[in-house]
Amino acid sequence: METKQTKAYGTTSAAEPLKEMVINRRKVQAHDVEFEILYCGICHSDLHQIKDDFGGTMFPIVPGHEMVGRVTAVGDHVTNFKVGELAAVGCIVDSCDNCEYCNDGIEQFCDEGTTYSFNSPDKYLGGATLGGFSKTYVCHERYVLHMPEFKDLAASAPLLCAGITVYSPLKHWQAGPGKKVGILGIGGLGHLAIKIAKAMGAHVTVFTTSPSKVEDAIRLGADEAVLSSDNEKMQEYSRKLHFILDTVSAKHDVNTYLNLLRHDGSVVLVGLPPEALEIGAFNVVMGRRSFSGSNIGGIAETQEMLDFCFKHNITAESEIINIQDVNTAFERLERGDVKYRFVIDMNSLIS
Amino acid sequence: METKQTKAYGTTSAAEPLKEMVINRRKVQAHDVEFEILYCGICHSDLHQIKDDFGGTMFPIVPGHEMVGRVTAVGDHVTNFKVGELAAVGCIVDSCDNCEYCNDGIEQFCDEGTTYSFNSPDKYLGGATLGGFSKTYVCHERYVLHMPEFKDLAASAPLLCAGITVYSPLKHWQAGPGKKVGILGIGGLGHLAIKIAKAMGAHVTVFTTSPSKVEDAIRLGADEAVLSSDNEKMQEYSRKLHFILDTVSAKHDVNTYLNLLRHDGSVVLVGLPPEALEIGAFNVVMGRRSFSGSNIGGIAETQEMLDFCFKHNITAESEIINIQDVNTAFERLERGDVKYRFVIDMNSLIS
Repeated sequence: METKQTKAYGTTSAAEPLKEMVINRRKVQAHDVEFEILYCGICHSDLHQIKDDFGGTMFPIVPGHEMVGRVTAVGDHVTNFKVGELAAVGCIVDSCDNCEYCNDGIEQFCDEGTTYSFNSPDKYLGGATLGGFSKTYVCHERYVLHMPEFKDLAASAPLLCAGITVYSPLKHWQAGPGKKVGILGIGGLGHLAIKIAKAMGAHVTVFTTSPSKVEDAIRLGADEAVLSSDNEKMQEYSRKLHFILDTVSAKHDVNTYLNLLRHDGSVVLVGLPPEALEIGAFNVVMGRRSFSGSNIGGIAETQEMLDFCFKHNITAESEIINIQDVNTAFERLERGDVKYRFVIDMNSLIS
Repeated sequence: METKQTKAYGTTSAAEPLKEMVINRRKVQAHDVEFEILYCGICHSDLHQIKDDFGGTMFPIVPGHEMVGRVTAVGDHVTNFKVGELAAVGCIVDSCDNCEYCNDGIEQFCDEGTTYSFNSPDKYLGGATLGGFSKTYVCHERYVLHMPEFKDLAASAPLLCAGITVYSPLKHWQAGPGKKVGILGIGGLGHLAIKIAKAMGAHVTVFTTSPSKVEDAIRLGADEAVLSSDNEKMQEYSRKLHFILDTVSAKHDVNTYLNLLRHDGSVVLVGLPPEALEIGAFNVVMGRRSFSGSNIGGIAETQEMLDFCFKHNITAESEIINIQDVNTAFERLERGDVKYRFVIDMNSLIS
């Protein structure tokens, strides 16, 4: 298959920092959309994968899966996208498009395995897919999103992963008017969850270990914010919440939060702590509660989320950086030193 | 409050065997039903509580919460029960009858705390409620069940706890035609779950660690039975089941079973392992799966279960014992040496 060279930032080993490299993108096929990447968000899972935290990272790796850009070319059969339009790609860039999961719009659970925007086997070129820390991307139109004209386009990039990761479970577990929703952890995911849950009409209580974030949670729109070390205050929420979105990516105590749920409530994990979490039987058995998980969302739901966020003027609180500062950004991300999301201005990567 | 003496079997300490004792029952109040206990099942939670495994056991304790009997007296305001009729009492003997949980028929989650048939604070007499290893029981009519005329009345006693414990989640998670249901563990709970899930119309696959129980599961009506140590066979069930009822009361690996679930499936625990269970984040996040719990069922649902089991001719595989053999029975229960439930013939307790 014919390819085109493009500049990117990646690494050949978990021990090395990211640096500029030249990679190949396939030439546009009949159903492909090619776009220039304008902005790319930085997500904790980029960090996990460049560090090979889960094992199985295919090097060289180019991370990045929150891409917003402008269409530069379309294949002959593409009718839904035009050159010059805004477009976006998130986590999913391919799937079998034939199994019950794909047919149900949950391509993230595709029976044959979802292809992610980076570090997945590349069905076209072999090797691994290479992500959005790059000047361009090429993707089958089925997995390309129409990007609304957000006023702050840079700050909209994190919606492509962080946004859908919280929107999907909030919708699935029916956050809305009359529902008391808890948000556990305020970071890239949690701060968007506050905004989206509020826009859905839910009553939002944030739980955080950080006193500084109590104030921030209110500023971001939460109705209440609780320091999780305040046992007395925590007790007040016992059996009160319908649903808790758990965005914490490190090992943590889930049982405390299960006990804040009303009957039939769920704590839903969207973080990916590398260590197992311990659940006491009584904490699920009493109240018929659930500890559940959710993984991003399908393509149609991602489009719905983008349109919802555009309508409600929701973007991520973002710190815009140049690609040359990406290694520092990863270091800061690792120690939680970002409020709340880094976004790379891809203009900084001179082509 | 006036009381009447009755014979019972109980113990004054976790270190002592059960022995005959005389206890007090309240005299029948306006809304009370008094009945002679004909049969009482033995449940693993009786064992846990006489051994004080969860802490907080109030001694002296008289266990027993699967009582089938014949009405001997009713209070002045009781219209639903008549002397001479069969009646039954399970786990729940009182609740506030006023909170949203009670109003929703899930009295087991009563906001003010459910009163259980033994080892709960007794609102009438003080001290602890004393259970069904006894000649008589007195209970407010709201918590008394109408007992259908099962051909094998002794074998119907375990339905009062084991039966409702599995019926309720099977119904809540919609076991029925077209649904692939897994049952984890075949003991008192699991063997009834096979029968009930089959009667509901589900396709039932049993997972067991015991080769002898593979055969037994099929005899009990399971469509398939799998030895959980057979990795190759287990792999065939990956992502295949809608729902798994987990009846195991000891620490065990839940992650293996989460991975047998289809998307949006649940492993639902009804056992009470004293140690926490470990859940790997990926196992719930991938497939939007849940690890949930369920605790017995409400009064109306217990009546529904009894009527369902009567209609489908479902009772427990029971070994009938005399009360004098109860300590041996507990020893055998502890090492899993019963197929599948002990039931005490209360005629053996001479009044």
